[in-house]
Amino acid sequence: MSASWESIAQKAQDFRDATIALVSPALPAITELPLDSTPVPKTILTAEEITITQSDPTDLVAQLASGALSSIQVTTAFLRRASLAQKLVNCITELLPSTALSRAAFLDDYLKTNGKPIGPLHGLPISVKEHIGMKGLTLNAGFIAWHDRVADANAHILDVLLAAGAVLYVRTTQPQTLMHLETDSNLYGVTVNPFNRNLSAGGSSGGEGALIGLRGSCLGIGTDIGGSIRSPAANNGLYGLRPTSYRLPMDGLSATMLGQEQIVAVIGPLSTSLSGVKLFMKTLIDAQPWIREPSLLPFPWKTEPQLPALPNGGKKLKIGVLYDDGVVRPHPPILRALRTVVERLKGVEGVEIVEWKPYKHDLAWTIISSLYFCDGGAEQSAALAQSGEPWRALSTFIIKENPGVKTLSIGEVWGWTKKRDEYRAQYARVWAESGVDVVLCPVGPGVAPAHEEGRYWGYTAQWNLLDYPGLVVPVGKVESGDGKEKGYEVRNERDAWNYEIYDADKYKNAPISLQLVANRYQDEMLVEAAEYILEKAGAPWVEYV
Amino acid sequence: MSASWESIAQKAQDFRDATIALVSPALPAITELPLDSTPVPKTILTAEEITITQSDPTDLVAQLASGALSSIQVTTAFLRRASLAQKLVNCITELLPSTALSRAAFLDDYLKTNGKPIGPLHGLPISVKEHIGMKGLTLNAGFIAWHDRVADANAHILDVLLAAGAVLYVRTTQPQTLMHLETDSNLYGVTVNPFNRNLSAGGSSGGEGALIGLRGSCLGIGTDIGGSIRSPAANNGLYGLRPTSYRLPMDGLSATMLGQEQIVAVIGPLSTSLSGVKLFMKTLIDAQPWIREPSLLPFPWKTEPQLPALPNGGKKLKIGVLYDDGVVRPHPPILRALRTVVERLKGVEGVEIVEWKPYKHDLAWTIISSLYFCDGGAEQSAALAQSGEPWRALSTFIIKENPGVKTLSIGEVWGWTKKRDEYRAQYARVWAESGVDVVLCPVGPGVAPAHEEGRYWGYTAQWNLLDYPGLVVPVGKVESGDGKEKGYEVRNERDAWNYEIYDADKYKNAPISLQLVANRYQDEMLVEAAEYILEKAGAPWVEYV
Repeated sequence: MSASWESIAQKAQDFRDATIALVSPALPAITELPLDSTPVPKTILTAEEITITQSDPTDLVAQLASGALSSIQVTTAFLRRASLAQKLVNCITELLPSTALSRAAFLDDYLKTNGKPIGPLHGLPISVKEHIGMKGLTLNAGFIAWHDRVADANAHILDVLLAAGAVLYVRTTQPQTLMHLETDSNLYGVTVNPFNRNLSAGGSSGGEGALIGLRGSCLGIGTDIGGSIRSPAANNGLYGLRPTSYRLPMDGLSATMLGQEQIVAVIGPLSTSLSGVKLFMKTLIDAQPWIREPSLLPFPWKTEPQLPALPNGGKKLKIGVLYDDGVVRPHPPILRALRTVVERLKGVEGVEIVEWKPYKHDLAWTIISSLYFCDGGAEQSAALAQSGEPWRALSTFIIKENPGVKTLSIGEVWGWTKKRDEYRAQYARVWAESGVDVVLCPVGPGVAPAHEEGRYWGYTAQWNLLDYPGLVVPVGKVESGDGKEKGYEVRNERDAWNYEIYDADKYKNAPISLQLVANRYQDEMLVEAAEYILEKAGAPWVEYV
Repeated sequence: MSASWESIAQKAQDFRDATIALVSPALPAITELPLDSTPVPKTILTAEEITITQSDPTDLVAQLASGALSSIQVTTAFLRRASLAQKLVNCITELLPSTALSRAAFLDDYLKTNGKPIGPLHGLPISVKEHIGMKGLTLNAGFIAWHDRVADANAHILDVLLAAGAVLYVRTTQPQTLMHLETDSNLYGVTVNPFNRNLSAGGSSGGEGALIGLRGSCLGIGTDIGGSIRSPAANNGLYGLRPTSYRLPMDGLSATMLGQEQIVAVIGPLSTSLSGVKLFMKTLIDAQPWIREPSLLPFPWKTEPQLPALPNGGKKLKIGVLYDDGVVRPHPPILRALRTVVERLKGVEGVEIVEWKPYKHDLAWTIISSLYFCDGGAEQSAALAQSGEPWRALSTFIIKENPGVKTLSIGEVWGWTKKRDEYRAQYARVWAESGVDVVLCPVGPGVAPAHEEGRYWGYTAQWNLLDYPGLVVPVGKVESGDGKEKGYEVRNERDAWNYEIYDADKYKNAPISLQLVANRYQDEMLVEAAEYILEKAGAPWVEYV
């Protein structure tokens, strides 16, 4: 007789806890779980550990390369802070103290012997979402039934990061089916938000989001097919990039619907800094991953400025601002943040701001939601039925209650693909006519949602449909003055629901983040524009740690 | 009651003949159709027309830009030679003398008024395969049932070519379903080979192949999903490039299976010269077509040398030579041509030649033939049933008799797509390990096949599966000494069939062409390597006009 799903989940959690118990020096038990977890690590870790774990990843690699810090020191600090994060917000599936420390020791030795770092990430700990294969380790992708799947090789991206000197030390949670904008599974339960445990860490890369939000990691790997990097980056006050498709290696991931290419999942970084995002992108693309993985595009990562320079050292930049997608109106904190950034950019020479009118964003959702599960959700249903685990509420929401999900014929898939391409062409025309470089917009209809309320994908999935790169940047936090809009007339059922659920107190302390989007393949320009906008707007205007 | 398919076909042919009858000065009737049509035009056209139509397209644009030739002169010459080609080999669906000549007059006037050409193709006549939409004109894609479809806009590629100064003057034949490596339909009958009317012009861009082979055009547009540019280029002694996908505009074509993206059809040039191929590619890519059509890649067309230079002015180039794909052995003329090129390149400093062992080419065919018609050929069957036109033998062959064609579920398509990607990754590894720049190989298992004998796609479809650019170059002609291989032991049914059908006399006068292939996105290097190889090998070593 096969094991019950409950016993499999218990075993997975026991295994995870056992890996965390190996961390040395051991950490105290957390007896009380506060609403805001973010102050806790600083009350437990050493001063050196706090400094290390709160450093910018580019500063860390500089110090690791010079020998000012050893990889053992840095890895130990992150192992300890990650363990705390698990106790506080439940973001880890497995800690790898033993392999990480022996890898760190090898790298420290390498530096001593050779007098130079092994690569651009020499000694840097990087966190990894569970469904990205690590040789010999589990690969459950959020399904109970897949608990005993084991990767027979490293995912391509991990091989590249290891060759560049990374230390892999922790694996993070993801939701059942991988298709939630939150992170909850029957294997590991719910990953909560470090800033307010009543809220979601976001998803599907929510283990990464919560872990990095608590500085249990400074750079991690997520994946995104509808917002799964950007939602957790936004909810945890982080930088997160969904690059254009086919720029970063995707071989060796576990998920349902592999082989589906109408809407392409991408891999990308979440980090505590924009320079961390750049370090990640440049390191991976410099390695020419297209030689091994021929679906990737042989573009270099461009390091020369992409925006025109002004004589005064400034940049010429035209920004479209999308306040509202015309379907679901964002909550007050999001609108305030957008207005604040716009206000602060006024008068900056060379920066032009126009309003971005949403072009049929509801149609975009109709198209993408028809292409996501074109087998009618058969693979997810089978994987869930195999163990008998119950459907999580958000799995039911996105598959069973989603009117776009049908078992399509091949001809119907071709039909939706043509609609996708027509829509992309229309949007490209609107974009070209506007002359904008980037669009500044919400990441979602609000800040981090309460659990099981992350139900509107429009603000992120829009850009997956178009395959435009989307970058999340943190700007502020919810304030008590962010009161409900008075007298707002709702437009539809989803809008009414989003309006109803809002209350400033409910989202207390939640980070506010915004999204910056560029045209397809303009990833480098996007990051450059974000740096410039943040600098000129003095954002973020709060501290997150 | 709806019209019979025969009467629709008759009407289409009458319409075509009426457009040809408009050409002035009028051409004599052709009373006898010789086995070899190629000498005929020179007995009918004026000396100036012969010179113009046999010029290199880059020479023509230079003379058109300087005013040494008027577009009226050049267009008239090609209209007349194209009319002759129709009478000789049946390669045209519609001639456009009136719009072409008024366009030519406009361009001549523009040059006089402005003192400069309108663009890089100023005044140059270009021929176009029928299924590439021209505003207000038919768009039948080879189906009787679609005879009254009319394009509501120009295909994107035509807009770009027109903006560059091209004159569109003729539309060319294609086979029923567009999925033959020959050109025969119930609408227009069979397009025969100019060099030997018992042989096929190839397909599916066989109207282009035969027309350009007879110099009724110097530059034309074909499409290729399994060999449809390369087969007609090879069969008619021409240069033809199937570029990497998503480099040239595809919007506005008519075909079945639009929206299918597992195996991507591409557009590309057929020309009388390699410089014509380059002119076409550079003009299109310089126009940044990715702004209007967002599926395209924003790569420039690189004009700087891609191969390392030697101190003596030569180039460093490593060539893999694939004599035989291990499935169907090429006929003697092809093997002789490969050996001759290899022999002639021996001793060229910097050129290294190795044998290219085929890596599971039969598996490649299994994969691609399973992905071509993943709706089980439903769209083709429906389009044929709609008019009641009979299935052509090669439609039956590639759909009904093809074991790869099944009505797949969505999950099965994903499965074959994964197999495709695994195969691509394996091939990429083999390629990278070998260090070759290009692979020199056959274009098919023989020269131009006899009618309805174009049944082995492996030598071209292989590179569609991998999405590697493939360039056809002409080298020689069949000789009476190209006797059947003695004592060859056949490997399988397809090999036996191909061995049996061979006889040197049957292929008398047929051009021999070879294919050069590069890794994905290496289109520019591929053309550069081809120029170098042809120069060093003194190829082609025969004249075709």
